[in-house]
Amino acid sequence: MSTDAFELLCRGTVDVLPLDDFRKRIAAGRPLRIKAGFDPTAPDLHLGHAVVLTKLRQFQDLGHEIVFLIGDFTGLIGDPTGKSVTRPPLTPDEVAANAATYQAQVFKILDPARTQVVFNSAWMSQCSAADLIRLAAQHTVARMLERDDFHKRYESGKPIAIHEFLYPLIQGFDSVQLKADVELGGTDQKFNLLVGRHLQETAGQVPQIVMTLPLLEGLDGVQKMSKSLGNYIGISEPPAEMFGKLMSVSDDLMWRYFELLSLRSNTDLETLRQQAADGRNPRDIKFELALEIVGRFHGQLAAAHAHESFMQQFSGRGLPQDIPEIRLVSATPRMPLAQVLKAAGLVSSTSEARRAVAQRAVRIDEQRIEDEECQLETGRRHLLQIGKRKVSWVELIHAP
Amino acid sequence: MSTDAFELLCRGTVDVLPLDDFRKRIAAGRPLRIKAGFDPTAPDLHLGHAVVLTKLRQFQDLGHEIVFLIGDFTGLIGDPTGKSVTRPPLTPDEVAANAATYQAQVFKILDPARTQVVFNSAWMSQCSAADLIRLAAQHTVARMLERDDFHKRYESGKPIAIHEFLYPLIQGFDSVQLKADVELGGTDQKFNLLVGRHLQETAGQVPQIVMTLPLLEGLDGVQKMSKSLGNYIGISEPPAEMFGKLMSVSDDLMWRYFELLSLRSNTDLETLRQQAADGRNPRDIKFELALEIVGRFHGQLAAAHAHESFMQQFSGRGLPQDIPEIRLVSATPRMPLAQVLKAAGLVSSTSEARRAVAQRAVRIDEQRIEDEECQLETGRRHLLQIGKRKVSWVELIHAP
Repeated sequence: MSTDAFELLCRGTVDVLPLDDFRKRIAAGRPLRIKAGFDPTAPDLHLGHAVVLTKLRQFQDLGHEIVFLIGDFTGLIGDPTGKSVTRPPLTPDEVAANAATYQAQVFKILDPARTQVVFNSAWMSQCSAADLIRLAAQHTVARMLERDDFHKRYESGKPIAIHEFLYPLIQGFDSVQLKADVELGGTDQKFNLLVGRHLQETAGQVPQIVMTLPLLEGLDGVQKMSKSLGNYIGISEPPAEMFGKLMSVSDDLMWRYFELLSLRSNTDLETLRQQAADGRNPRDIKFELALEIVGRFHGQLAAAHAHESFMQQFSGRGLPQDIPEIRLVSATPRMPLAQVLKAAGLVSSTSEARRAVAQRAVRIDEQRIEDEECQLETGRRHLLQIGKRKVSWVELIHAP
Repeated sequence: MSTDAFELLCRGTVDVLPLDDFRKRIAAGRPLRIKAGFDPTAPDLHLGHAVVLTKLRQFQDLGHEIVFLIGDFTGLIGDPTGKSVTRPPLTPDEVAANAATYQAQVFKILDPARTQVVFNSAWMSQCSAADLIRLAAQHTVARMLERDDFHKRYESGKPIAIHEFLYPLIQGFDSVQLKADVELGGTDQKFNLLVGRHLQETAGQVPQIVMTLPLLEGLDGVQKMSKSLGNYIGISEPPAEMFGKLMSVSDDLMWRYFELLSLRSNTDLETLRQQAADGRNPRDIKFELALEIVGRFHGQLAAAHAHESFMQQFSGRGLPQDIPEIRLVSATPRMPLAQVLKAAGLVSSTSEARRAVAQRAVRIDEQRIEDEECQLETGRRHLLQIGKRKVSWVELIHAP
């Protein structure tokens, strides 16, 4: 049982340090204090953020205690260099409002009854300059400059303000304050999480386990999910939209999402993989992913409705039941429409494809295409249609 | 008049930055706030410390306001790395006791009526961690690593704890707090004084002038004056001892001491140099130095007594009035006594010198010598005697 727990908790992680220590603590069966810190800026979470939250939920379901830390202390200071207009100091009211928004979203994944929400201003605003100096004495400049981003900036002559060296120490001090057993974060947080270990050791505590999780790829399957790249699924998006976006991901990315976003057991996932190997339609497996994720954010009923209307959208309007599925490999991140139509066998030449567009006969993902030169994104499945008869699913794979 | 003041204040300095700005502020005639900071560790001052204090006194005599800052805030923290057993945190009582000892010594040079003594704990102990972060945001890691000692330690892989980057900022913040016009320090303080300029500018103040003074050479004329090297004159030493030590310095070093320790005008010093060039006995010029310095710490009467007994010591006990003065150059920092006696012409061979020692006939600086292998220190004048007849002053110069 504890081996299963250990395997599940390690699933999808990048680092678990030290791994053996983690194994022992899980085997001991005592509830652990699991810390994860979040910025106090106004959140609009997407599935990228859900990776850490999903891991927290797995801990929670195994009986561990979650400490959801809102790092509001630094937010209340803002950007003291005055260089960033986007980081003015937040007022306590703004922090409270952001925290409420956060919790509304986060508690779609975490169980509020088993989550302790804390603000580090609670202890940091009581902290004197002398306290901070004592904290700063516990780390060296050289070690701090080993952090990847600091190192690059220093080497390339880009300024690092001295207070930036203090923030990892404050994050580490939060772990001392909370007596964390495990701290979770993205891979970019690894250094800061290790600072926490160091400070806990100095404070005479058993140092925390450091667990990092990867950045989730967006819908394109290549770049990390982010709002600015437009390749995201927001956790507040309506059920149908969320469902459709999840169905649009490539089969490879589907497995990645299962691994990082699903609460299903490792055994369950192995069974699904076996089914795929045995010839089960990947679309049906993707339905299971989409149902679970949409169900988590909107409830099972809404997920079932989203599933139904997705089916109707593609089967209820005269689409054939068995649309051929084609995979195309592209050397570039996008592929010209005319080439895709020809490679999919829907037209015999690219000039025929252009004529079809000119005649307003071509639809991609249910949208009529008017631009002959339009390009399709790789890393996704697209529904291609010319008139009513010619229909094909095409999965565009980018292989540079 | 203000040109004289400017020339006097610049005398002996290493850096005055920016020089033109300093000239203008002195010319303006307004009283300036002159800051100098001192450690709160138990002081036992020697003439090396008196260099900065003498400069402060010159400012004071010209009507400027002296702010004598005791940097007790960091002393109250101690060495947070716990690595230095010599730097445990001081208690407020210890700081107060040290400060009293300080003032007792310092006010032999400074006029207490025109000196403001301040403790930086007054504002720093009110300072929160958030305040310190805002301060730290005003300087970059790269600039801090430009400081000579930090640079060397970083390059050679010796650890620099992060709080060490905060101390120059605190020193600089003291200048903001005190609205200093000028800050004085040793050459090793130049970087920290410049940090003060930077922080004052950021705070919208006119940045302070940075004035650095050299480290004073000790009695040997080579190494900096320090207790551990034994080449010092303590400002609490008895008048006769202080007088004798001052009389033992080389003629070159005498001019250096005039420049850095005397309150006499530049014109006065030029006159003395002219007299020396015209053949006045350097010993008599040295008397003027010794009288001034001893007079400052013990009063004019005590200085006159010290002078008198110094004269008697060498002329009242049958010493000839005109003892020959000899200069010897040594390649090593010390020179064997037998060689010195031979080179001075008091013996014809080193074996004769050794016999004289064995017969208890040799005295150096009025002390009977019993060790044939003894060595004399360079950088000083020594009185050599064999029996009652053979007497010579010898100045040993180290020229490696």
